[in-house]
Amino acid sequence: SLRQAMEKQDVIALESLVAEFQPADLAEFLRHEEVDVSLKLLAHLDIEERAEVFGYLPLNTQFQVSELMTAEGLAQLLNCMDSDERADLFNIMDEDRQTSVLKLMAQEEREDLRRMASYEDETVGAIMTSNYASVPVTDTVLQALDKIRKTAPDAETIYQIYVLDKLHRLVGTISLRELIVSRPTALISDLMESELITMSPDQDQELAAKMISRYDLLALPVVDSQQRLVGIVTYDDAMDVAEAEATEDILKGGSVGGLEGSFKDATIFMLYRKRIFWLLLLVFANIFTAAGIAIYEDTIAKYAVLVFFMPLLIGSAGNAGSQASTLMVRGLGTGDVKLSDWAKLFAREIFVALALGLTMAFAVAFIGHFRGGMEIAVIVALSMIAVVMLGSLLGLSLPFVLHKLGLDPATASAPLVATIADAAGILVYFGIATAILGL
Amino acid sequence: SLRQAMEKQDVIALESLVAEFQPADLAEFLRHEEVDVSLKLLAHLDIEERAEVFGYLPLNTQFQVSELMTAEGLAQLLNCMDSDERADLFNIMDEDRQTSVLKLMAQEEREDLRRMASYEDETVGAIMTSNYASVPVTDTVLQALDKIRKTAPDAETIYQIYVLDKLHRLVGTISLRELIVSRPTALISDLMESELITMSPDQDQELAAKMISRYDLLALPVVDSQQRLVGIVTYDDAMDVAEAEATEDILKGGSVGGLEGSFKDATIFMLYRKRIFWLLLLVFANIFTAAGIAIYEDTIAKYAVLVFFMPLLIGSAGNAGSQASTLMVRGLGTGDVKLSDWAKLFAREIFVALALGLTMAFAVAFIGHFRGGMEIAVIVALSMIAVVMLGSLLGLSLPFVLHKLGLDPATASAPLVATIADAAGILVYFGIATAILGL
Ligand SMILES: [Mg+2]
Ligand SMILES: [Mg+2]
Ligand SMILES: [Mg+2]
Ligand SMILES: [Mg+2]
Ligand SMILES: [Mg+2]
Ligand SMILES: [Mg+2]
Ligand SMILES: [Mg+2]
Ligand SMILES: [Mg+2]
Ligand SMILES: [Mg+2]
Ligand SMILES: [Mg+2]
Ligand SMILES: [Mg+2]
Ligand SMILES: [Mg+2]
Ligand SMILES: [Mg+2]
Repeated sequence: SLRQAMEKQDVIALESLVAEFQPADLAEFLRHEEVDVSLKLLAHLDIEERAEVFGYLPLNTQFQVSELMTAEGLAQLLNCMDSDERADLFNIMDEDRQTSVLKLMAQEEREDLRRMASYEDETVGAIMTSNYASVPVTDTVLQALDKIRKTAPDAETIYQIYVLDKLHRLVGTISLRELIVSRPTALISDLMESELITMSPDQDQELAAKMISRYDLLALPVVDSQQRLVGIVTYDDAMDVAEAEATEDILKGGSVGGLEGSFKDATIFMLYRKRIFWLLLLVFANIFTAAGIAIYEDTIAKYAVLVFFMPLLIGSAGNAGSQASTLMVRGLGTGDVKLSDWAKLFAREIFVALALGLTMAFAVAFIGHFRGGMEIAVIVALSMIAVVMLGSLLGLSLPFVLHKLGLDPATASAPLVATIADAAGILVYFGIATAILGL
Repeated sequence: SLRQAMEKQDVIALESLVAEFQPADLAEFLRHEEVDVSLKLLAHLDIEERAEVFGYLPLNTQFQVSELMTAEGLAQLLNCMDSDERADLFNIMDEDRQTSVLKLMAQEEREDLRRMASYEDETVGAIMTSNYASVPVTDTVLQALDKIRKTAPDAETIYQIYVLDKLHRLVGTISLRELIVSRPTALISDLMESELITMSPDQDQELAAKMISRYDLLALPVVDSQQRLVGIVTYDDAMDVAEAEATEDILKGGSVGGLEGSFKDATIFMLYRKRIFWLLLLVFANIFTAAGIAIYEDTIAKYAVLVFFMPLLIGSAGNAGSQASTLMVRGLGTGDVKLSDWAKLFAREIFVALALGLTMAFAVAFIGHFRGGMEIAVIVALSMIAVVMLGSLLGLSLPFVLHKLGLDPATASAPLVATIADAAGILVYFGIATAILGL
């Protein structure tokens, strides 16, 4: 119906339809439309609504639509966008476009945009907004409320208000809740909370998301080295960061490089690029397993039945290892586990893995006995205990080692751990077999 | 220092130290202390602060501490806790305790607790709170603000205000921002937003978290079948749900059953229990791979070199499959991908997997030629293309199939996909080898 109205150029129908949509839903509709159609529909919204809907579009769609705009139209839109969102768009525009758009903006806005666009990707600075509500520490409640009423249209939130001294340093925060229930003549300095939770703009965005979730904040103030307020991170952006970081860890856990944007909309080439690296790396790692097999070729030739149990044993080593690394990666990811916990967790894992290995050994010993008699049953059972423990302890430790080396622990993916466990498992299995069979 | 003050029973030091802590930090400290120590320290806080800190403790710690309290003390605490948090605690108390505590509460609170505790786990009802701020639709701005000022101490948020008719039906929402900038004589009914985003209490909590993130809501109203407001879900609880759901998916992706609570604090037996099921299931699935090997025992006996390439080929099938299933599970998890997208994604995956298979085939063909000559090179290259495609298409499809069957797509873990791909890969590999070698 929205599409029909557009095709018919039915302006009245369009405007009434558009008003019924939530901005996020309208953006979801637009992102599946042609870019020029999106531009036309956006033109039916007033500038404030247009900026809001536009902000919900994926960044690459924002860019494509912006390319069809005049410099004037784009500058006007940027003026109304949230300071964090316009900085992201600005950063992917080409230089000529950046220059021509900046020229058309008022000085204050221009400086804000330049500053907000200057922070490194994935930092707190890159997700913060400069549209915060602040009051001088010398204000009374009445003065502060008056000020907040004036700031309201521009601030992303007025529910958490930042109290600044003359040098723009953050000295406290006060909630609007507190303000509206307090005596109009009370001093902000008497009411404000001065135990502050702050971050600096060059810290990891992931940490900001964790702080907001941990302390149930509406927004987290960001200060520079002189304690001056430079921006705030709002809870809605923290939710997006937390989702993006979880996605990154999940994809890494499956040995896929992080995708920018939607999986559904990804191109064949992009998917190829994000997957081929690990596939190639892992196939070469598999050569170690193959080499392990080659070493024991004589044993295999004499006891062909040993090959039958290979997938059961190395599969179990890999599976136990994948479980342990998955638990550890997520523990490190949520902050539940710290580097210093390693020894304690390793000790516990010995007992867990032993219990798992014994259960598994019991299960496969019967099959071993059935296929190859008592000797094979013993070999298979002992090997199972050994490889399950080996895989588990390796899976638990690898994320720690990566973390220590300054790498992302999430790189310890199920396929990587399984591949390493495979190689180690082969050596253990055929080693035990050779010893017991006296070869 | 907090611990020192506690040991010295230094009440003055304790009280000043405790005041410096954020409630979440104090709870983090307490959860590593003995239960009786926690109880003593909590006694130094006034009842409001105590309820807040208590609410940040993990549920099992809350329960342990509550067991040391008198029925009166516990009832008093419950009176001050958020309605969602106290319902969770109430639900794990034994029946006698529930009865004795309910008796000590005022009728209104008692009814609220009973109602809030009645919702199924993992539903919207189980995470919503009844401490919302509401105004009658007939109010003016001035009347509404007066009312909100009075509600403020009890409501979880007063920033989103729910507008109700005489029958307690939700007819609109208005933000405190809007209220404080509007004319005092304006009517709420003229200002309120009446395009509502609501959910019902029996829907999945995960959906509430997604809605809050999608529409950047502070809180999501929950209504019954008659459109009567029964509670709200706040953004901070939505963040916790999103994290818990991501953890669940990540652990499933590594074939681990969902852990309740911290991995760091889990017992050996709990970890054993959460892992043994999949390890056993997968080892029995591996028997199919073993059976595949058994079928081709003659081929293996004649061409021992084929065993060398086994780990490379089945490993690659499993890895490509793990990648595809991981991408798909996360896509379904975030809502990026829907069931109806399957055909389109399957078609794209054919090309992605073909490109991956060709690259991999090229890489291993050289090793094949080096180890076993031209014939082996051809077998290995063809098998690689086949198994990478097979693994990928299987990994992509399995989460859809599980979803269709009403199961959680996240059950399509890397280890499960790898195990299935192993079995299929063995048959393809030896099948191709047998055909080409004319056995
Ligand atoms: Mg936004
Ligand atoms: Mg940014
Ligand atoms: Mg990161
Ligand atoms: Mg929280
Ligand atoms: Mg923002
Ligand atoms: Mg990360
Ligand atoms: Mg494997
Ligand atoms: Mg809370
Ligand atoms: Mg609950
Ligand atoms: Mg769920
Ligand atoms: Mg959002
Ligand atoms: Mg809550
Ligand atoms: Mg789920």
